[in-house]
Amino acid sequence: MYEGPVQDLIDELGRLPGVGPKSAQRIAFHLLGADPADIARLQTALQKIKEGVVFCDLCGNVSEETRCRICRDARRDQTSVCVVEEPKDVLAIERTREFKGLYHVLGGALDPLSGIGPDQLRIRQLLSRISAQEVTEVILATDPNTEGEATATYLARMLRDFPGLTVTRLASGLPMGGDLEFADELTLGRALSGRRAL
Amino acid sequence: MYEGPVQDLIDELGRLPGVGPKSAQRIAFHLLGADPADIARLQTALQKIKEGVVFCDLCGNVSEETRCRICRDARRDQTSVCVVEEPKDVLAIERTREFKGLYHVLGGALDPLSGIGPDQLRIRQLLSRISAQEVTEVILATDPNTEGEATATYLARMLRDFPGLTVTRLASGLPMGGDLEFADELTLGRALSGRRAL
Repeated sequence: MYEGPVQDLIDELGRLPGVGPKSAQRIAFHLLGADPADIARLQTALQKIKEGVVFCDLCGNVSEETRCRICRDARRDQTSVCVVEEPKDVLAIERTREFKGLYHVLGGALDPLSGIGPDQLRIRQLLSRISAQEVTEVILATDPNTEGEATATYLARMLRDFPGLTVTRLASGLPMGGDLEFADELTLGRALSGRRAL
Repeated sequence: MYEGPVQDLIDELGRLPGVGPKSAQRIAFHLLGADPADIARLQTALQKIKEGVVFCDLCGNVSEETRCRICRDARRDQTSVCVVEEPKDVLAIERTREFKGLYHVLGGALDPLSGIGPDQLRIRQLLSRISAQEVTEVILATDPNTEGEATATYLARMLRDFPGLTVTRLASGLPMGGDLEFADELTLGRALSGRRAL
C-alpha cells in the first residue's frame, strides 16, 4: 500500500503479537518522525534480546547471569519450589508477595498437538533438582487451562514417588472482586468442588 | 521487574504509541522465542525507515524515489490537488477510489500551541505548485477537528486570489451507516447546515 521501507516496517510490525495493521501503521509513522536515537535504542534492545539474555541454569527463568536473582537469594525458602510455565508467570507470583520459595520455569505446557511433550519442557531438570536439593513442597502453578491442567496432572504423577514431598496445586475458584452471577459454569463448578471449611 | 535485556526491550517497546506495558511484555517474550531471522528483518526494516525513506519532492508523500508513484502517473488528473495532513490520509482517500487527481501532504496541521505555524507545514510548496502547474481545483481534506479546520480556513484565505481556482472542502455530516440518534451535536449541526437539495 505504501512505497518501500514504510510498508516493509508496517509488515514486520504487523507480525508481532497483538499488533494489527492499524497499530503497525501508527507505530511506523511514529518511528518515521521519531528521533534517530530512539530508533537506535530500540534496535540495540532487539539486538541484545538474542545475544544478552541468559536463562538461569537452575530455574530456567530469564536472567543476566547463569544464576538468576531469585535463585541467588539465600534468604528465600530453598525447600519450596513453585513450578510455572513461563518467566512472566514468575513475575505474576512475585507481585503477590505471598511466596518466599524458589521457582522452576518449564518453558511451556504439555501440548501433544503442537509437538510439545515432556522432553520439550524442563521436566527432567525439575526431577533432578528435587532429588539433589532438600525440597519438601512443589507447588504446581501451571495455567488453569487444558494444557496447564494436563501438565500439572502429569507432574503430580511423576512426583508421587518422592519420599516426604508434598505436591500442591494452585486453588481454582471465583476470582476476587468478581460476581458469582457472571462466573462461567466451569469456574463456579471448581469453586464448589474446592469449597473450604470455615 | 525483569533482569537486563528483557526489561530493556519491554521499556523500549512500551514507548511506542498504542503499546502498553502488557503488550510490550507479550511482544518481548514473543521476540525472545522468535527465529533470529525474524528479528533481523525487523531490525533491517527499522534501519531503512530512517535511511531509505524519501519524501516526494512534489507532493511530500512517503516515496522510494524523488517523485512518488502518484505524481509520476501521467493518467492522473493534473489539474486537481487534494491537500491532506499526513501520508496516511493519502492512503485513506486512495482507498475510496473516488479521486483521480494529485495530492499535497502538508506534514501536519496548524497548531500554534505546539509551535506549528505556516512555516512548519508545506504551504509555501503548495502555493508555488499551484502557480507553476495548471491547477483548477484544490480540495482541502484536512481533518475535521480544530487544527484541521483552522488549517483549511487559513489555506482557503491564501488561495482566494488565484484566478480560476476552485477551492473546496470535504463535506462534514453524518457518517454513512451511522445512526442519527447517536450522532453528536456538532456533527448533526454540520449535517443540517450542509444539507443538499435532492
